[in-house]
Amino acid sequence: MPYITLPEGLPGIRGPMAFRPETAKPLIQLVEVLLRGPSTLTPGERELIGTYVSSQNDCFFCQNIHGAIAAYHLGGNEKLVADVKQNYEGAQVSGKLKALLAIAGKVQQGGKHVKTEDIERAKLEGATDLEIHDTVLIAAVFCMANRYVDGLATWQPDDPQMYRARGAKTAQEGYGKTP
Amino acid sequence: MPYITLPEGLPGIRGPMAFRPETAKPLIQLVEVLLRGPSTLTPGERELIGTYVSSQNDCFFCQNIHGAIAAYHLGGNEKLVADVKQNYEGAQVSGKLKALLAIAGKVQQGGKHVKTEDIERAKLEGATDLEIHDTVLIAAVFCMANRYVDGLATWQPDDPQMYRARGAKTAQEGYGKTP
Repeated sequence: MPYITLPEGLPGIRGPMAFRPETAKPLIQLVEVLLRGPSTLTPGERELIGTYVSSQNDCFFCQNIHGAIAAYHLGGNEKLVADVKQNYEGAQVSGKLKALLAIAGKVQQGGKHVKTEDIERAKLEGATDLEIHDTVLIAAVFCMANRYVDGLATWQPDDPQMYRARGAKTAQEGYGKTP
Repeated sequence: MPYITLPEGLPGIRGPMAFRPETAKPLIQLVEVLLRGPSTLTPGERELIGTYVSSQNDCFFCQNIHGAIAAYHLGGNEKLVADVKQNYEGAQVSGKLKALLAIAGKVQQGGKHVKTEDIERAKLEGATDLEIHDTVLIAAVFCMANRYVDGLATWQPDDPQMYRARGAKTAQEGYGKTP
């Protein structure tokens, strides 16, 4: 039961976004450019970063919907998404993505947890300044979204098929078309 | 020394925003509507919430610039800003704002820390659903901004006069005009 009266039938962040369209608009524009805009990180890699941060914040809705979006971008590889959440250092992802996930994990704990050696590792693995910037901002944005979703006690259905269907739709159409 | 090469001479969040204007645009639109748009919470109250969350996250730049913006909106009352950061329950603010600051403090720790009794207290003090929504989102947005600013080790000057001058300008002109 959400803490405030939200439009019914909209899971997770979609409830408060429908409740407050004035703030939903820039939020949607932000994730659209950050997760799907031109980048040397693939949409699948960016969604994996967001999914990992959401799992560290224990946000059920965000880790499942973005996990489903990531899996769709990764050719349906749900196992890889689960592996990244559980232990990304042992997952079948690039050394660069592992280093970026390490930075994202530090950002989740707090900005000051990111240390010079975390950045050096990412640069040694070939990460650019823009990729490091976007990783920090993606992790920070999910720390916001996770708090928005859980801080209002939004409705978060259990059904994995709902997340798969919605995730596929968002992966295909983008955030702007499916607010 | 920032972790990535940012435009020089721009303190705090202004460095990475100039580095990445594509994400800066929706970020600015978000804070403009959330902190300065039509609301039954005054701009001063909303800036106090953001300042408090930034102090809990130990973000020097954010707590000082938003503290300066709050103080400007509050008629130059820098003592009230300091009191809210140190112990808002004993500060000269309304019972409603104290209850909203308590919610913001829980959001800072993590979304799931917000409990039914926190919401009940705010409603008993007269807070509306929209005010509770905006408080949760403001706290979440500052958890993002604090991580963005500190996670990239941005330049954060010490001079209080810089924050006063810039805070007054932003309070007068808004975020859109002073990215």
